[in-house]
Amino acid sequence: MPEKTLVQADYILTWNENFEIISPGEIVIEDSIITYLGARQERPMENFTRIIVGEDSLVMPGLVNTHTHAAMTLFRGYADDMPLMEWLEKKIWPVEARLRKEDIYWGTLLAVCEMIKGGTTCFADMYFHMDEVARACQESGIRASLAQGLIGVDKIKGMAGLRESKSLVHNWHKKGDGRITIMLGPHAPYTCPPAYLQMVMEMAEQLSVPIHIHLAETRGEVAECLKVYGQTPVSLVNDLGLLEYNVLAAHCVHLTPGEIDLLAEKKVAVAHNPGSNLKLGSGVAPVIELLKKNALVALGTDGAASNNNLDMVEEMRLSALLQKGLSEDATAIPAHMALKMATLNGSEALFPDEEVGTLRKGSKADLIIMQLKNPHLFPLHNLLAQIVYSAGAADVDLVMVNGRVLMEKRRLLTIDEERVLFEGQKRALRLVKD
Amino acid sequence: MPEKTLVQADYILTWNENFEIISPGEIVIEDSIITYLGARQERPMENFTRIIVGEDSLVMPGLVNTHTHAAMTLFRGYADDMPLMEWLEKKIWPVEARLRKEDIYWGTLLAVCEMIKGGTTCFADMYFHMDEVARACQESGIRASLAQGLIGVDKIKGMAGLRESKSLVHNWHKKGDGRITIMLGPHAPYTCPPAYLQMVMEMAEQLSVPIHIHLAETRGEVAECLKVYGQTPVSLVNDLGLLEYNVLAAHCVHLTPGEIDLLAEKKVAVAHNPGSNLKLGSGVAPVIELLKKNALVALGTDGAASNNNLDMVEEMRLSALLQKGLSEDATAIPAHMALKMATLNGSEALFPDEEVGTLRKGSKADLIIMQLKNPHLFPLHNLLAQIVYSAGAADVDLVMVNGRVLMEKRRLLTIDEERVLFEGQKRALRLVKD
Repeated sequence: MPEKTLVQADYILTWNENFEIISPGEIVIEDSIITYLGARQERPMENFTRIIVGEDSLVMPGLVNTHTHAAMTLFRGYADDMPLMEWLEKKIWPVEARLRKEDIYWGTLLAVCEMIKGGTTCFADMYFHMDEVARACQESGIRASLAQGLIGVDKIKGMAGLRESKSLVHNWHKKGDGRITIMLGPHAPYTCPPAYLQMVMEMAEQLSVPIHIHLAETRGEVAECLKVYGQTPVSLVNDLGLLEYNVLAAHCVHLTPGEIDLLAEKKVAVAHNPGSNLKLGSGVAPVIELLKKNALVALGTDGAASNNNLDMVEEMRLSALLQKGLSEDATAIPAHMALKMATLNGSEALFPDEEVGTLRKGSKADLIIMQLKNPHLFPLHNLLAQIVYSAGAADVDLVMVNGRVLMEKRRLLTIDEERVLFEGQKRALRLVKD
Repeated sequence: MPEKTLVQADYILTWNENFEIISPGEIVIEDSIITYLGARQERPMENFTRIIVGEDSLVMPGLVNTHTHAAMTLFRGYADDMPLMEWLEKKIWPVEARLRKEDIYWGTLLAVCEMIKGGTTCFADMYFHMDEVARACQESGIRASLAQGLIGVDKIKGMAGLRESKSLVHNWHKKGDGRITIMLGPHAPYTCPPAYLQMVMEMAEQLSVPIHIHLAETRGEVAECLKVYGQTPVSLVNDLGLLEYNVLAAHCVHLTPGEIDLLAEKKVAVAHNPGSNLKLGSGVAPVIELLKKNALVALGTDGAASNNNLDMVEEMRLSALLQKGLSEDATAIPAHMALKMATLNGSEALFPDEEVGTLRKGSKADLIIMQLKNPHLFPLHNLLAQIVYSAGAADVDLVMVNGRVLMEKRRLLTIDEERVLFEGQKRALRLVKD
């Protein structure tokens, strides 16, 4: 007999070309799929293996974090308030060189604990020892699209990275009931020369997997690319033909109007990371302009070493506030658009072939329950405004991915949180020891 | 016998020209005053009326919210994603006109619930029916500096406001064991003509109270002031002599370099409200430049109708991230500076004559305990970075003001939270009903 779950709540956020609210409502989930979503009905309760009654609560799609380096949680707060290159060269790269496989496993689990507790049901990761990351995702039950970070400037390491990526695809692509997929992860044009990107594209073609890349993050990166190649990063990868593939491009902060058109036209998924871009002093991506051109813009946290948390509620709010403030237009990025970027757009970026990111009949059950009975969410005039402009990560009460409950009443059900905190602290201290 | 409290914690954030961490440490509080702060000592425990042991936790100064309109929580989420003047004229002013005294009382208590739960121990308010606000502060135990919002364009209302302010000073200034003080609150130069501001200054002189005013919030306000008076708002109030008084100036977004010098020189306390300024599309205050000139910059949330929460942890983080991102300088506003703006600078702005805002021997015991055992705060490399860049309002576990515990294990001890939520919702719905 399949698992059959009933979820009842005061409010359910569904999608029908726009967000719609059903109040009160209920959802029936059979195995991983939503088979009913709508008004409450008379039902024989004995048919359900699990009944979840959310009091004073809202059921909404899980948040999707489209760009992070999960295991970098181990370096959270290790180096702050420093210029980007000094931060990388003097602090981050030396400690990353010490990372062992097991560190990546525990660091990823620490990130997954935080993400689940903040309502994130799906994420895109780029790092290394990705077998360990996949194992952490497999065990914890979260949905993820994983990419081995590829550096092409060293030829031997570059080739090894490609081989590892290939084996990653063979071992993990579409595994874990389809929760885990693999992308190829050429780090950036400034670390992957054109000939190497060509090899990445060939492999993407052969294996039918998308490409996850950093693009136009800093003003310095654009200037350097112009100096070396006489082209901006976006123009360079476009001329190489890379944008013909399914591409997830992180950051895209420094773009010309022509490049904005190009990213929209080539249907590149843009992972906008407002918190990290601010904190590292990189700038602010032209999100209003990208959306005007119908580009697919989703949200990400980047790694916890440059954010310093993996809080998608915060990124969602920041994505709206920042654009309003800088354009001096309070109507820019209204609440529903920020929410769409944090949910539906993220799913389209990472799992375009699956029905995730929206709650409706036939969707995968990736959902969260937000607890609304809290002074900062009172009174309730407008549910979408409340989620985007007032809520916090700690308001997330229950998290379900693919029909499986991963957190209930803020208690993690698939991860030994105590052990993860202990291992995270122990390994972090070893890594930064002089 | 006086109340004598012992607080023990893994970390205590004290101040000695800079933030310093004592680990582990303890604090002794007699009535409202810290009489010991330092390493743990052998003590006869029976001498204490209360012992608080914070496990995996940090004791730090309470956060100070230097600009809000507390009762506007009733309009949280009522009108968003709208231009400022349309928001005010079509939505906020019509519903504000319906506010009764009791609404202000319950709306303020709702705000106080939220502020305490987010670690705010002290705030500055500008609104009306301020007797009700004072009563809410008196009962709840929070520290506050309150100002009746004065509008001088209507002469009769303007004079009535001055009379009410005078009686407010008589009834409430330095009441509640000194927790409650009164300021005069001329709303802004565009609502208070020069002759009226002159009367406010005379009253400030007579009553020896400071002035709380909105200044240079929007580009439109500056343009209008130039049109009407041939001067910017800051220049206008300076020529009137207003900056010779103790002034708390909210926003200060649109300033010339000369005005930045002036605000620093005149020791004006600037209440920087990054969230509200972004959300209303007003812009971003030149905080880096103000701090370079040694201006006193503190932080505020503004009202919950334009934020939409009263979360000072969020404002603190935003104050650092925003300036880093816009200046493209990751070293701008380091963690300790953001924390200082949110604590010590706020206290200097609101209670310059009291030892609040820092924890050390002789200070008033306005403190909070942050719970550190949570994935988003692991591992612990740097305590200040963790508080400013990673923590959330929900990490606040205990709040003490003037030696009295207002929240313990996230349960409010001086306010009937259930009743406040009920009254807040009921009154809010009545106010917005067509």
